[in-house]
Amino acid sequence: MNFKLMGRINSYVLAIEAVLMVPSMLISVGYGEIRAAGALLISILITIAVSGILFLVSKGAKNSLRAREGLVCVGVCWIAMSLLGALPFCISGEIPRYVDAVFETVSGFTTTGASILVDVEDMSKGLLFWRSFTHWIGGMGILVFMLAVVPMGGKNEGFTLHLMRAESPGPSVGKIVPKMRETASILYLIYCGLTFLCVLFLLAGDMPLFDALCTAFGTAGTGGFGVKRDSMAGYSEYLQSVVTVFMALFGVNFTCYYLLLRKDWKSVLKDEELRTYVIAILASAFAITLNIRDQFTSMREAWHHAVFTVSSIITTTGFATKDFNQWPTFSKAVILTLMFIGACAGSTGGGIKVSRILLLIKGLRRNIHQILHPQKVQTIRINGKSVSETVMANTNAYLSAYVLIVIMSFLVLSLNGGFSIESNFSAVMCTFNNIGPGLDQVGPASNFFAYNDLSKIVLIFDMLLGRLEIFPILVLFSRSTWTKLK
Amino acid sequence: MNFKLMGRINSYVLAIEAVLMVPSMLISVGYGEIRAAGALLISILITIAVSGILFLVSKGAKNSLRAREGLVCVGVCWIAMSLLGALPFCISGEIPRYVDAVFETVSGFTTTGASILVDVEDMSKGLLFWRSFTHWIGGMGILVFMLAVVPMGGKNEGFTLHLMRAESPGPSVGKIVPKMRETASILYLIYCGLTFLCVLFLLAGDMPLFDALCTAFGTAGTGGFGVKRDSMAGYSEYLQSVVTVFMALFGVNFTCYYLLLRKDWKSVLKDEELRTYVIAILASAFAITLNIRDQFTSMREAWHHAVFTVSSIITTTGFATKDFNQWPTFSKAVILTLMFIGACAGSTGGGIKVSRILLLIKGLRRNIHQILHPQKVQTIRINGKSVSETVMANTNAYLSAYVLIVIMSFLVLSLNGGFSIESNFSAVMCTFNNIGPGLDQVGPASNFFAYNDLSKIVLIFDMLLGRLEIFPILVLFSRSTWTKLK
Repeated sequence: MNFKLMGRINSYVLAIEAVLMVPSMLISVGYGEIRAAGALLISILITIAVSGILFLVSKGAKNSLRAREGLVCVGVCWIAMSLLGALPFCISGEIPRYVDAVFETVSGFTTTGASILVDVEDMSKGLLFWRSFTHWIGGMGILVFMLAVVPMGGKNEGFTLHLMRAESPGPSVGKIVPKMRETASILYLIYCGLTFLCVLFLLAGDMPLFDALCTAFGTAGTGGFGVKRDSMAGYSEYLQSVVTVFMALFGVNFTCYYLLLRKDWKSVLKDEELRTYVIAILASAFAITLNIRDQFTSMREAWHHAVFTVSSIITTTGFATKDFNQWPTFSKAVILTLMFIGACAGSTGGGIKVSRILLLIKGLRRNIHQILHPQKVQTIRINGKSVSETVMANTNAYLSAYVLIVIMSFLVLSLNGGFSIESNFSAVMCTFNNIGPGLDQVGPASNFFAYNDLSKIVLIFDMLLGRLEIFPILVLFSRSTWTKLK
Repeated sequence: MNFKLMGRINSYVLAIEAVLMVPSMLISVGYGEIRAAGALLISILITIAVSGILFLVSKGAKNSLRAREGLVCVGVCWIAMSLLGALPFCISGEIPRYVDAVFETVSGFTTTGASILVDVEDMSKGLLFWRSFTHWIGGMGILVFMLAVVPMGGKNEGFTLHLMRAESPGPSVGKIVPKMRETASILYLIYCGLTFLCVLFLLAGDMPLFDALCTAFGTAGTGGFGVKRDSMAGYSEYLQSVVTVFMALFGVNFTCYYLLLRKDWKSVLKDEELRTYVIAILASAFAITLNIRDQFTSMREAWHHAVFTVSSIITTTGFATKDFNQWPTFSKAVILTLMFIGACAGSTGGGIKVSRILLLIKGLRRNIHQILHPQKVQTIRINGKSVSETVMANTNAYLSAYVLIVIMSFLVLSLNGGFSIESNFSAVMCTFNNIGPGLDQVGPASNFFAYNDLSKIVLIFDMLLGRLEIFPILVLFSRSTWTKLK
């Protein structure tokens, strides 16, 4: 295993993290929050120190990385940056217990948005900003960012590819352009552009700049951390609608935007995943509207909240305008199903991903065909292109791992007395799918504070497993990663 | 498609069903229940008539059946025998609505044990006997029975194999002996022998003969229909323990018993599925005992009820001595997990089956290995024998289908107002896995009566899908089954 290169990559990632903490510190200074600014400064120094040590230790690293090293590296980077990213909360005393601070930070980076904070408005502006900013960093991925800005790897495309594949969501991560580094840059440019647009639209609705930035970060990363006690409920209908649209936009595969920029409308309109995603949003919002219309004065108002909630849940953002815990069982069932499906591959959203669901359904159909007509061999196609058997095998393994992880996490959480089955199940679903608030005792009106430490640690791993799509974290615990070194 | 042979097989199956109704009629006569006896007589006559018509229509059938025809045939047979088996309940007026009667009958044949009856003790003895007897018939399978007793197929092993494969549970159905017909006979002999033993042990505990027979049928088929309002709660501890042991025994792969009869202890002790099954029972019972001990006077009593419940749930029987709805969340979570796992392949139990879970875990492990060491090709082994890739593909497709069916059923059930998420989810899990009572509003102390007809029909299909392991029912709805006829 190429530990030196892994150390080098980790060193870069932590250096970037330290730099990314600086704006939050400046904001703290601007608002005169000395304690928070100090905490951020100390955290920056510690992060730089760790990064520096790793840099020195990893001198002379060879630029070659195998697939498994890519996975391990991404897993380790995410854990390291979470452990260090939690420092400001802890040092400032705003989240006194370290395990809670790590929970909040992992929830941020993984764009989950589940919180242990009882009252978010108690927090200093600087740390609120850092909390929301973690969503933005985690949304597109810090390693993708590193690949875009740090000139390493050189001609070694394989190494860049392994890292991108391990960090980016979806069953098969393709290159947009032949060069991986350029692909990473294009993704980040689109990401920045859309975020900027979102801020503009929010400012146009008279949202204060601070709120607009934080809300845009939460929307762009499909995270869901807000700056208000009542999430998005207190904002105007216009602002809620802006967020509805942008959440849905950030749940789309970014390749589609690149195709749009190249004016390739045809491919975008024909994209099977995008079509399914749009239909799923409209159909669910329509069904929920019919189901909840009694609770609102008009059909239009019901639609407004239904489509906001659907957009928030399918993209795994987790913002709320209404406590959907109070909605009828059918609406809650639709919401639970959307949690499971998730957004498109190659977006900033979580969940199983629409394209994986498509692959699973097509795989099932092929299996039935095979039983009925054993002599025929069929290949599975998405957007007209045949899908390799490796991708199918990985997708199947993904579903097995998904089910096993949900069951095991659910069992451990149940050891925690005082929570209902519904709470525990939705807590697992909501962290593992990177959504945020769940149902019942972990619904939009509550938080995760009451769980014990063991449960919190399990949920922290669920969030990481969900964001990195299981394998980068799973291989860390696999014996054969560590024993069969060559 | 060989419709004639399918008609012929259906004709035999219904003739057997008619014969199997006779004992219930005699019992009705014995207890002087004229109405029930009459209803059974009419039902027998109708069933014979349908069987006769099918026999005449299917004259000159050719003895060859392809795999897909085997699947379709088993699906159709099960639906036909359920529709006719429901007649006695309906004609006698004891279950006035036909959809309810079909629900109860399908629940019987599929060995689910979910009931729409508000008070089981209101029912006549003859129909109670029929209700429990359906468990026994469905447990090992009526087509397996037909293959054992009707001399058809002759030298055509393929045809017999297709039917057995479609009806018997498990990822890969093997022959015990080279000839399929002999295999079927051996299975039924073991089944009868164990049932007889169960009756003897129950009689030894002073259970009345009628109760002993019905309880043994429910135990043998791992069904769970009882003859008492309080399921097994009113019986002595000895009787409950007998049932505990026999439920567990009927959840074992019957091949193990054949091996034991041949004194091949070694293979049985080494059987991976059996080991996992035994460990799962003991570990879950132990965990639940610790969790519920406060509710009982002694550790021993807690263990008694814990092991009964675990044995009842993992074998998907569904008998109850306690309302486990009142137990703490952790115990309920363990119970939900056991529902999902189910019993061993080749037993009378339902669920995903222990061996499928083993295959899924091994497949996941292989996938991780493949990611880590792409150059190595690995085969999956169970009990030292390598598992074919077709079986792996079917197992993966099974999981996809399983998850999709659970979600879709859950959504339709949620349309029914007034039920909690927990009730709906466990109703689907309990019918699809052929268990019976679920949690909350469909827990051991309640029943399925309150659901509307749409929900009941969905649950009826869930029970059939569960018992026949999805594909025989799914292909009935697949276009390519019906269009690409050659």
